[in-house]
This record gives sequence, C-alpha cells and structure tokens, in this order.
Amino acid sequence: MDLTLFLPLFEILGTVAFAVSGAFVAIGKKMDIFGVAVLGLTTALGGGVIRDLILGVTPPVMFRTPSYAFLAVVTAVIVFIPAVRRFLTARQALYDRVLLLFDSVGLGVFTVVGVQAAHGAGFAGNLFLQIFVGTLTGVGGGILRDVMAQHTPYVFSKHVYASASLAGALLCAILWRFIGGAPALIAGAALTFLLRLCAAHFRWSLPRA
Amino acid sequence: MDLTLFLPLFEILGTVAFAVSGAFVAIGKKMDIFGVAVLGLTTALGGGVIRDLILGVTPPVMFRTPSYAFLAVVTAVIVFIPAVRRFLTARQALYDRVLLLFDSVGLGVFTVVGVQAAHGAGFAGNLFLQIFVGTLTGVGGGILRDVMAQHTPYVFSKHVYASASLAGALLCAILWRFIGGAPALIAGAALTFLLRLCAAHFRWSLPRA
Amino acid sequence: MDLTLFLPLFEILGTVAFAVSGAFVAIGKKMDIFGVAVLGLTTALGGGVIRDLILGVTPPVMFRTPSYAFLAVVTAVIVFIPAVRRFLTARQALYDRVLLLFDSVGLGVFTVVGVQAAHGAGFAGNLFLQIFVGTLTGVGGGILRDVMAQHTPYVFSKHVYASASLAGALLCAILWRFIGGAPALIAGAALTFLLRLCAAHFRWSLPRA
Repeated sequence: MDLTLFLPLFEILGTVAFAVSGAFVAIGKKMDIFGVAVLGLTTALGGGVIRDLILGVTPPVMFRTPSYAFLAVVTAVIVFIPAVRRFLTARQALYDRVLLLFDSVGLGVFTVVGVQAAHGAGFAGNLFLQIFVGTLTGVGGGILRDVMAQHTPYVFSKHVYASASLAGALLCAILWRFIGGAPALIAGAALTFLLRLCAAHFRWSLPRA
Repeated sequence: MDLTLFLPLFEILGTVAFAVSGAFVAIGKKMDIFGVAVLGLTTALGGGVIRDLILGVTPPVMFRTPSYAFLAVVTAVIVFIPAVRRFLTARQALYDRVLLLFDSVGLGVFTVVGVQAAHGAGFAGNLFLQIFVGTLTGVGGGILRDVMAQHTPYVFSKHVYASASLAGALLCAILWRFIGGAPALIAGAALTFLLRLCAAHFRWSLPRA
Repeated sequence: MDLTLFLPLFEILGTVAFAVSGAFVAIGKKMDIFGVAVLGLTTALGGGVIRDLILGVTPPVMFRTPSYAFLAVVTAVIVFIPAVRRFLTARQALYDRVLLLFDSVGLGVFTVVGVQAAHGAGFAGNLFLQIFVGTLTGVGGGILRDVMAQHTPYVFSKHVYASASLAGALLCAILWRFIGGAPALIAGAALTFLLRLCAAHFRWSLPRA
C-alpha cells in the first residue's frame, strides 16, 4: 500500500495548524480580520512560495492549486470569530494537544514536500538544495509570520523545531537516492514528526548562548 | 477616449505618495539619508518587485523603466530636507489631505497594474493569481516598509486599506473577462480609490479581535 | 598579474566576517544554535540570494557552490562556542579591528561580485540594475539579519556603510564599460573598502533628520 497517498491529507492538517498559529499571532497583535487572514495564509503557504522562487518555479505551486490557500484563509477567519476562540480557550489543554499534533504533522509533511519539489524541479543531484528547501518549506512560513508580527522567530528559540525539520529533510534526501522517493518521503516526515513531538513533550531544547 | 492613457500619470502620483510615506517612516526611525531613500524606494516599488518575482518576470519591471525608481528616490530625498518638512508641517491639514488623495490614487492604480501584469505574464486564466498579485502590488510596498522599520504592518490595522485593494483587484480581474482590459482597469482602480477615501473620511474599520 | 584571482580569497574573508556579525546578533537575541547558524548564513549569503532571484538566476549561486554556505555555518557555530566568545571578548580591541577589516573587505568584494553577476546574467546594458544588485549583494544580508532579529537595519544608520557599497558599485559598473571587467572589479571593491574603513575610523556619518 502506497502511504504517500496520505500526504495530501497530512498537508491539509498541517495547513490548518499553521494557519491557526498565524491567526493567533495576528490576533495578539490587534490586526483586523484582513491581517488575520493574510498572516494565516502566509504562515501556512509562505515557506512553499519562497521555496518555489528559489527553485525557479513560477508562479509558485500555491497559485496552481489554490485550494490550500483557500483552506488557510477560511481557517484563519474561523479562528477570528470570538465564539470560536472562547470555545477553544475553554478547552485549552485539549486544544493545545490537538494543535501540537497537527503542527507536528504539518512540519513533517511540509518538509518532505519541499525535498520532493526540489526533485520535481530537476535538482535530483543537488543534495544541499534539497535539504535547504525542505527545511525552508517546513519553517519558512513561521519565520515570515514572526517577522511580519515583529517577533524574534520562534523557530530559532523554542523547543527543537527547525532542527527537527532539518533532520527529516536530511533523512529524506539521502534515503531518496537509495530506496526511492516514496519510502524516503514517509521516513523523513515520520522523523520530523516524532522529533518535534518528543521535543515538545520532553522539553528538549538546543543549546543557547 | 481611452482613460487608460492616464494610468501612467496616476502611477506617478502614487509613486510620490508612497515614497513620501516611506521617507517619513524612515525619518521617524532616525535613519540616515540613504535609509530614507531606500525606504521611499521600497515603499513605492517593493510590491511590484515581489509581484514580478512571483510571476517569473525577471528582472522586475522596475529595472526596465528606472524612471519610477528615480522619482521615488528624489521624492524621498526632498522630504528629507528639513526646510521641506517644516513647510509641510506648518500646513499639516492641507498636506494630510493631499497625501491621502495621492495615496488613494496610488493604491487604486498600483492594484490594477498588478492585475494587468498577471495578464501580461500569460496568466489570463488564473483569477486567483491576478487578484493576489493585484493586492500585493497595492500593499506589498507598505508591508516591506513596516517590516524594515519594525512596525506591525499598518495595512493590516488601519482603516480599510488592504481590503480596498483586494476589492478593486477582484472587480478588475472579473470585469476583464467580460468587458475587456481597459474598462476593467478603470473600474477596479476607481473602486479601490473610492473605498480607501471613504474609509479614511468615515473612519471605516474592519472588525478586530 | 590578474588581481581578480584574489576575489575568491576576499570573498572567504567577507563570508567569515558577515557570518560572525550574524552569529553575534543571534546570540544577543538568545537564539539557539540553529538560529545562530541560520542568521550567520543569512547575513553572509542572503544578499546574493535575493540578487539572483531578481536576476532570474535559479537556483541562486549559493546552491551551486555550497562551500561558502558551509563556511558561513561553520563560522557561526564556532562563534557560538562559549570559550571562543570568551577568547574574543578578552581581546575586544584587536578583535574589533580584525572584524572591521574583514567586514570592509567583504562589503567591497560582495558589491563588485554583484555587479559581475548582473553582467553574467546578460544585463551588460542595464547600468541601474548592475548598481542596484551590486549594493544589494553588499548590504542585503545585513538587512535580512536585522529584520529577522527585529533591529532597525544598521546599514541605514551606522557610519557610511550602504553608501560605501553604492559608490563602489557605481564606480565598478561605469568603469566596466570603458576599461573592462577585471580592473573595474578591483577599483570598485577598493573604493568601497576604503570608504567603509575611513568612515569607521573618522566616524563619517551621513546626515540624519
């Protein structure tokens, strides 16, 4: 059974989780509903857009399959509704857990989708590029979110996050050469997912100065 | 009579208004004259540059018709002159009104020029892309300005602004299919212009969390 | 003797200096080791990546000669080691002087490499583009560093810096037409280097509002 068939499903979960995180940051910054939608969209799809510009894929994939952009905007707008936020806040513990799960899924799947995009753009021989754009797809949206909201990027300071993406991209890109794309995608996404989840649970952090 | 002949004239007014707004933000941040020029340039032309990268138009239009870049830099440098700022400050009410007018013209014309650029780059069939890059051309420079000057982007919190651009881009892109480019450009620019002006006058704001 | 043979050597010094400056900013912002590596990399190579996107060179040069990226990351990680920072801090005066020298070399050589890249991408006739991407290659990484670390970009407020890069790019681009690429590269880099060094020594600053 081809597990990569589930990638789009996981991308959907990740898109929702990333959009929610962008929307909450925008709300915290007192942006209006338009800003909330834009920050949700940017967080969910911004990494992929920069990746495509680097790969020379224009217009970026986001503009060819607008359903993900639509999903991100709708998600952000739903989060904007006060009743929804009250509902979520009242169930903070459960909500935190679900969001962490979705966010970890998103980080894993976005990372390997980035590696896949580098192959698709004809750079099967450039391991460095694959790993770079894999990680960029995973964490680029979060960096853009924090830059637009005037935060120091969380991905560089919170529990092992960007490095979980880097590890998955590395594994995926290397395995691809030996066992082919499909199992490499699964393995890379799973590694990132598990690292991120364990890091949050066990409070792993990278050294800091 | 072909009203689109006036588009370049309106682009000039918009370039001046956007460059002035960038220059004032830079001055407020105590940047030197070089920073003031760069922020004026970025505010006026930055949205168009990102648009062209997304459309795969390289080098961006800004580098083929440098007269707009020249105009933006000269405008910013003029604003930098203390005597000019004193002159403007002494006539604050009039100056505010003129700048609002120019800025609204700029927002309207930049928006539809963005929609037009998407058509010119061969994406006549991609409505989503047209609307996205239209709005990006309208507000992207202002976002870059605020990110470089460490503000939360004003376009996401002040009176209906980015949404005025979005509405004009939407109207322009849709009308284009039915009544052709020229009237669509006029109608889209007019809608954005009027929405922006009314929003400032009547203090319309989008809901905020 | 062809002095341009030394350009790669100077690029190495510049890469080290820029990576060090990025790493120190990241450390000051309490980022983890991953963030320090990313900020070092971004400061050293970010200007060149944006330049290549504007020139339509994809993937950017950074991904074809990954040795510079490797050097920047290794440099940032070395700076991250507490013992290394203690060693440097104990010799602050010497260290400041060496870093200033390297940074000035980097600014000079990155600037003319940017002008050269515009020629290489087929824009030998577009002086404005050459000067723009030359300056962008010189100061773009520093701007990205400051935006990611939530500073107002230093390049727009500290001693003549971006304008030293602009002057060198201008000289290089103009001389290129009359005396050819090699001497133009040397002259432009030397001018930027000297201006930057003198500005730091004599505390030259551009006017500020």
